[in-house]
Amino acid sequence: MKTSIATVSINGTLKEKIIAVANAGFDGVEIFENDFLTNNLSPKEVTKIVKDSGLEITLFQPFRDFEGMPDNHRIRAFDRAKRKFDIMQELETDLVLICSNTSNISLGGIDRAADDFYELGEIAKERSIKIGYEALAWGKYVNDHRDAWEIVRRANHKNVGIILDSFHTLSKKIDLKSISSIPAEKIFIVQLADAPYYEMDLLYWSRHFRNMPGQGDLPITDFMTYLNQTGYDGYLSLEIFNDNYRSGPRELIAKDGKRSLISLINETDKKKKNTTIIHNIEFIEFALEEKNLELLENFLIMLGFKEIGKHKSKSIKLFIFDDVKIILNYENTILVKEGRKQGPSLYAFGIKVNDIKSLLHNAKSLDIDFVRKDSNQSMDVINNIDGSIYIVDHNSSNVWKKEFNLQEKNLSNEFDLKIDHIAQTLHQDEMSSALLSYTTLLGTKKSPIFDIIDPSGITKSQIIENEEQTFRMTINGADNKNTIAGKFLENKQGSGIQHVALSTNNLIELVKKLNNQGQEFLKISKNYYDDIEARFGLDYEFCKELERLNILYDEDDSGSFLQIYTPVFNDNFFFEFVQRINDYKGYGASNALFRIAAQKYANDN
Amino acid sequence: MKTSIATVSINGTLKEKIIAVANAGFDGVEIFENDFLTNNLSPKEVTKIVKDSGLEITLFQPFRDFEGMPDNHRIRAFDRAKRKFDIMQELETDLVLICSNTSNISLGGIDRAADDFYELGEIAKERSIKIGYEALAWGKYVNDHRDAWEIVRRANHKNVGIILDSFHTLSKKIDLKSISSIPAEKIFIVQLADAPYYEMDLLYWSRHFRNMPGQGDLPITDFMTYLNQTGYDGYLSLEIFNDNYRSGPRELIAKDGKRSLISLINETDKKKKNTTIIHNIEFIEFALEEKNLELLENFLIMLGFKEIGKHKSKSIKLFIFDDVKIILNYENTILVKEGRKQGPSLYAFGIKVNDIKSLLHNAKSLDIDFVRKDSNQSMDVINNIDGSIYIVDHNSSNVWKKEFNLQEKNLSNEFDLKIDHIAQTLHQDEMSSALLSYTTLLGTKKSPIFDIIDPSGITKSQIIENEEQTFRMTINGADNKNTIAGKFLENKQGSGIQHVALSTNNLIELVKKLNNQGQEFLKISKNYYDDIEARFGLDYEFCKELERLNILYDEDDSGSFLQIYTPVFNDNFFFEFVQRINDYKGYGASNALFRIAAQKYANDN
Repeated sequence: MKTSIATVSINGTLKEKIIAVANAGFDGVEIFENDFLTNNLSPKEVTKIVKDSGLEITLFQPFRDFEGMPDNHRIRAFDRAKRKFDIMQELETDLVLICSNTSNISLGGIDRAADDFYELGEIAKERSIKIGYEALAWGKYVNDHRDAWEIVRRANHKNVGIILDSFHTLSKKIDLKSISSIPAEKIFIVQLADAPYYEMDLLYWSRHFRNMPGQGDLPITDFMTYLNQTGYDGYLSLEIFNDNYRSGPRELIAKDGKRSLISLINETDKKKKNTTIIHNIEFIEFALEEKNLELLENFLIMLGFKEIGKHKSKSIKLFIFDDVKIILNYENTILVKEGRKQGPSLYAFGIKVNDIKSLLHNAKSLDIDFVRKDSNQSMDVINNIDGSIYIVDHNSSNVWKKEFNLQEKNLSNEFDLKIDHIAQTLHQDEMSSALLSYTTLLGTKKSPIFDIIDPSGITKSQIIENEEQTFRMTINGADNKNTIAGKFLENKQGSGIQHVALSTNNLIELVKKLNNQGQEFLKISKNYYDDIEARFGLDYEFCKELERLNILYDEDDSGSFLQIYTPVFNDNFFFEFVQRINDYKGYGASNALFRIAAQKYANDN
Repeated sequence: MKTSIATVSINGTLKEKIIAVANAGFDGVEIFENDFLTNNLSPKEVTKIVKDSGLEITLFQPFRDFEGMPDNHRIRAFDRAKRKFDIMQELETDLVLICSNTSNISLGGIDRAADDFYELGEIAKERSIKIGYEALAWGKYVNDHRDAWEIVRRANHKNVGIILDSFHTLSKKIDLKSISSIPAEKIFIVQLADAPYYEMDLLYWSRHFRNMPGQGDLPITDFMTYLNQTGYDGYLSLEIFNDNYRSGPRELIAKDGKRSLISLINETDKKKKNTTIIHNIEFIEFALEEKNLELLENFLIMLGFKEIGKHKSKSIKLFIFDDVKIILNYENTILVKEGRKQGPSLYAFGIKVNDIKSLLHNAKSLDIDFVRKDSNQSMDVINNIDGSIYIVDHNSSNVWKKEFNLQEKNLSNEFDLKIDHIAQTLHQDEMSSALLSYTTLLGTKKSPIFDIIDPSGITKSQIIENEEQTFRMTINGADNKNTIAGKFLENKQGSGIQHVALSTNNLIELVKKLNNQGQEFLKISKNYYDDIEARFGLDYEFCKELERLNILYDEDDSGSFLQIYTPVFNDNFFFEFVQRINDYKGYGASNALFRIAAQKYANDN
């Protein structure tokens, strides 16, 4: 299927929009009428730009309030349509979208509407124009694609067909089976949009919150499954109204759109389905200058890490605590590359995957920046908007033994320490773009977005996990530079890993041991412990111990959760230690505001 | 009635919040539990800060999921309540809010809930604590204050009363008469919040969009009318959940809250009702350096203005066109005061009012910055967040004749030119604060907020008018610095007047005359005229004339509207000329995107 996007989906002048659409690799572009009307170019000039960019105009839209108009208004509506046909002919485009009437003066009746469309179809035929009828979810009489289809069916005119839009159908939870019986040749184009799930007025939801397939919560793949049953092989065209896209980076948003369509097409094609399995998060990596090495090493040693090896040829050290590997990279090249001169920076993590070739193939089709290893670099790397991800192939020989001189062989596994999850922080308007790479390339799932209340604003948070929960991550979007997340972005000079959570099978003993070595943790308010004791009905002594140790507590339906935070290192990262008891699934989200308040307090005092 | 606000309504740490509340002049503060729990101060320390600030704690809130719990959960709920009572006693506060249960495991039944409240009332009585029960609009069984009142009535316990919240009642459009029959002594506190009208899930609406009474669209004054019938004279307490307030300027938001309550109290008191009448917008005033005088004078002269006088003692000139007065102020003092050294700046306007003393009195009670005239200044001035407004008293002698040497006496009134409206531009998060001054002090009405699509973002716009339509204004909130509104803010270094619309009785002739003098206007795309001809069914020749002249067209139910824009002067202001035909009421909002696109085009080329 070919890909298209409506000009309303991105910002800029009409010319800027068309160029961004072409650069993102779409095959076609829908011209949103207001973008044409407000622009100073003539139809012929617009057409030339479109053609020169290698695109075609897939649709001219929308034409409103056409069918079922009474008396004089009906005559006016036909006149208006003819005028628009004039412009379409100058634009050399042959498909117009007529959306269902929302006017209060319009009249209902399937046959009345069908007659109007037949009559307009005759006019359109003379000009070789095709009319696509779309049911708006808030149309006055027609607000369901099944009714729109019945009108098209009764109009029974070669030049009149239906336009399906995933938002209008899915937002109203209309039975999708009804799609599969529409003849493919009567579906003139298919518009796609996703949206986060909010219970709100459909019009308001649609005009402000639509997003790319895969970024929201609507079951777009189900929609595609039934669409595929019709045999439709025309354009899939994005029509996204989103407040953030109206001011966000145009080229990036267009590329995300293209990526979302490719992923959606692959997902509904068994042969192309994403088969990537992430085995685990294999390591995290700091970039730093040699002069800062001691500082960071001491921080890690206080947390129980041990240096166990040096790279055979590069300025790289490997630290380990049980199953957690940390790389300290003080090669000059990495610093230049990262441009981070503000002290140690936790700039990347590595994942171990089942099949690196298939991952590379997917990255290519999704236009994701995937850099193969070379003489300077011993691993492949994905460059995402929020940082770098190294890829370790599960099938390749042991990279650690091969490249490092390892000093110790028999390491204990006293605390069963593993990397539990990575917490990325980024700007709120980067979240949906970052998310899309994880879901499309790595085949992960996502939670809905939830709010974390910071004393200085709201941080939006979203969980990204794979099915096997061997890859867990949170992405956290800062809304301003005064929140803890926002200050982090400022200190780090951009998006990146804010903290890493390490899981253990015995947090209390681990914390006691580290305390004995002199390690301190983030101090939590006494008021918190009074509350959780009452809230969860905790044992008094147990709760007192949590308070003494500054451990936070949570519960879900399956189990309970302990978590503790280190102080912030170098203003730009910290560790969390967690213990998941009895299959607790969450991330302690309800404790986030306590962590943030405590960090703010520690920072201010 | 005394005033209070919940700590959740503004941002900061608990201590910062309490201090801001005190500085804004509230009598009391509600402690929102999470603000207490996340803070590092003990209850005693919090109480000391509250008392030292001259406040009292009006309420501790919320306590959730209490009534109607089964078995063990019921025991736990009572235990939890006792623990909260402990904290309340340490905080030395006697009123707790229990909101209606939202838990899926809770059980319904008025009597069951009443029994729970009686039993808890007995426990509370021993500790001299009062329990206020509030119906959340999304409570599982109780989501209507009438049901909450019935439970309180049946509990029949001195220590159990009801808490009313305007949002929960008004968002569900519950009959307000039901309030007036509740005995005043059983209403333990009243919480107030307004909200813009959106059709969305009540919980989502409530948690993100609440705002101060008068800033939204809910009929809060009706709510107050029925509340007053009960004889209630306790606290009015703001409880506002608003995403913008979570990051906005704390002190300003607190002051707005206090202002909104004072205005609401005055509005429902006939003796204190706002009686200000604005006769007209009397003039606009530029501040500039003498070296820029010629530039601006030429701009005005090209638009048909004539210099008709100089100030008797100051460096001030008066320009007039029919009924429109423009002051050019090149006194050094004004420039120093305004700190605007970027060329001529349209920094203020003047209004003529019926009674300046009553206005001054209101400004005082509303804590609005109202500066009386002094030796340096011949008029009183209101300093609002978006700029200065001079006040001319309708009853005082003619300020122009008194202070100016007027050169011409017989001026024609060929085009009946008047100031139609002022268009202010400000940052989006300043809009609700700016609005509040206009509605509370000047007694104006406001439209809902609507979106203006800019190629680089969304500008929010709202109309402010008085009943008589002798005062008209639009406030326009920029979301980023790339929109036309945002660039204006950057060039102007802050909020202010972006343009002034002047109305005439013959726009076409006026434009022709000015064109003949060599004046050019903002060029509008040809595509626009093709569209309006079809859209409004306009006469071909008429439409061609509009196109030649670059005049925009609009219609509403009452009439039609012509409008045209001058080029932008000095990157920071422009004029609009309008003609209202047959009582057209609007502002040509649907043309705003064409104006903005044309300005962007003119700017880029």
